[in-house]
Amino acid sequence: MISRRQLIDQIKQKKSFLCVGLDTDIDKIPEFLKNYPDPIFEFNKRIIDATKDLCVSYKPNAAFYEARGIKGLQSLIDTWKYLPRDTLNIIDAKRGDIGNTSDKYATAFFNEEASGMSFDAITITPYMGNDSVTPYLKYDGKWIIILALTSSVGSKDFQYLETGDGYLYETVIQKANTWAGADRIMYVVGATKSTEFTNIRKYAPDNFLLVPGVGAQGGSLEEVCKYGITKDCGLIVNASRSIIYAGNDENFAEAARAEALLIQQQMEVELEKAGVI
Amino acid sequence: MISRRQLIDQIKQKKSFLCVGLDTDIDKIPEFLKNYPDPIFEFNKRIIDATKDLCVSYKPNAAFYEARGIKGLQSLIDTWKYLPRDTLNIIDAKRGDIGNTSDKYATAFFNEEASGMSFDAITITPYMGNDSVTPYLKYDGKWIIILALTSSVGSKDFQYLETGDGYLYETVIQKANTWAGADRIMYVVGATKSTEFTNIRKYAPDNFLLVPGVGAQGGSLEEVCKYGITKDCGLIVNASRSIIYAGNDENFAEAARAEALLIQQQMEVELEKAGVI
Repeated sequence: MISRRQLIDQIKQKKSFLCVGLDTDIDKIPEFLKNYPDPIFEFNKRIIDATKDLCVSYKPNAAFYEARGIKGLQSLIDTWKYLPRDTLNIIDAKRGDIGNTSDKYATAFFNEEASGMSFDAITITPYMGNDSVTPYLKYDGKWIIILALTSSVGSKDFQYLETGDGYLYETVIQKANTWAGADRIMYVVGATKSTEFTNIRKYAPDNFLLVPGVGAQGGSLEEVCKYGITKDCGLIVNASRSIIYAGNDENFAEAARAEALLIQQQMEVELEKAGVI
Repeated sequence: MISRRQLIDQIKQKKSFLCVGLDTDIDKIPEFLKNYPDPIFEFNKRIIDATKDLCVSYKPNAAFYEARGIKGLQSLIDTWKYLPRDTLNIIDAKRGDIGNTSDKYATAFFNEEASGMSFDAITITPYMGNDSVTPYLKYDGKWIIILALTSSVGSKDFQYLETGDGYLYETVIQKANTWAGADRIMYVVGATKSTEFTNIRKYAPDNFLLVPGVGAQGGSLEEVCKYGITKDCGLIVNASRSIIYAGNDENFAEAARAEALLIQQQMEVELEKAGVI
């Protein structure tokens, strides 16, 4: 569990607002790891060891683990257990269902006794509205991170629809803001559209924004910060593939660290520019 | 794998368009089952045995299994293995993510070799648009079932937003219809709003609609059919709790069968009224 205050303190201390996305794919990890009993966990463990002083958050995407059935879920559970307890540990699951079912998803990801895992935050898809979101908030101190504007091409299909009250993604933020405050809700905002941050900050001046799409998906950190950073930072920027697959041999963890360090150094510049540190 | 033709044939043969929702909750199943090595699977097995001649589809909701971690996933895999091969076996997972991640979810639910399961259909949340949906269509003959109008209270938050082109849920259907035909796409349409079916049939005249909310959630089968049935039936109506928890002792499977039979008999009347059989 990590509060808003603890998250901000950690950003200042590490001079970083980096989230490392653990989208670990058996077909992309170094060959030599396949001799280990659980190559996925072994990969994650080494990535975590190599990056934990440079990032404030980790984000495994559930799909990559689910694709491997039982052994994938075991890798996810073991990864969760290995994650530092002072980073914001996000399960990128993009769940959304009616109330009694969302209760079960909340159990799956927030209740260690039941499922073996207790992440600090979960990503949520908003389409089903209020009752698909609020069950997660029953867990004291846990965060929900609601999809607002995503970085994929498909985001144009619905998120930019005019609802009379702005674009759909703006309506999502305005409505979700009535469910809980900036101490419990973050929003996913795709970095390929950095000029939209000005707009989003009108509706979500204090919320942390989880920004995917810097790196492999092509967003620019400087642009994101120009429009999105706040006095408390207010940003968690995710990089997955560009860090975890920076190398593909025995030195992959060092290569990942080097890449994470480059991003952390850019982040330090931005934090100073914005007066956060 | 079950084609549109096979589904329609089975509806005519069984005189039923019932889907049994396997939302199996360890806290709600009969006490005596807890002596079995896997109480959840044992429950599902007996429900399936008792209902398979009365329904054309089964739909486990992933959340109920995920909430139990590794042992829950094992129950889901064993349940999938036990499901009849001529029913439409739907995983109610409501997934949605960017392209390369949706690929992984498709693997999780459609690729037996990788994950241990290969359902015939998956429910999908549309918020992320096109690329969150199309990876599933790469699997020949598999279905996607897109959330359009849900039966929860939260459906009012976004699904009824005016987009200039009708309500958001209508826009979702119109857009998704450009991605694939009625042989690959179904829509989830909540039965608590049966008058909306007339409207939905304007945009989706041929698609099968998966209708939750009859039974525990309060929808009326007659109303749904009045507005939603087509010459090919075009409906799959789900009941979960009202069937699977009809009894709570050693005779629970017989009680479930009795409840399923009641619904099947109503369905037979509606199929005759509509001239499907």
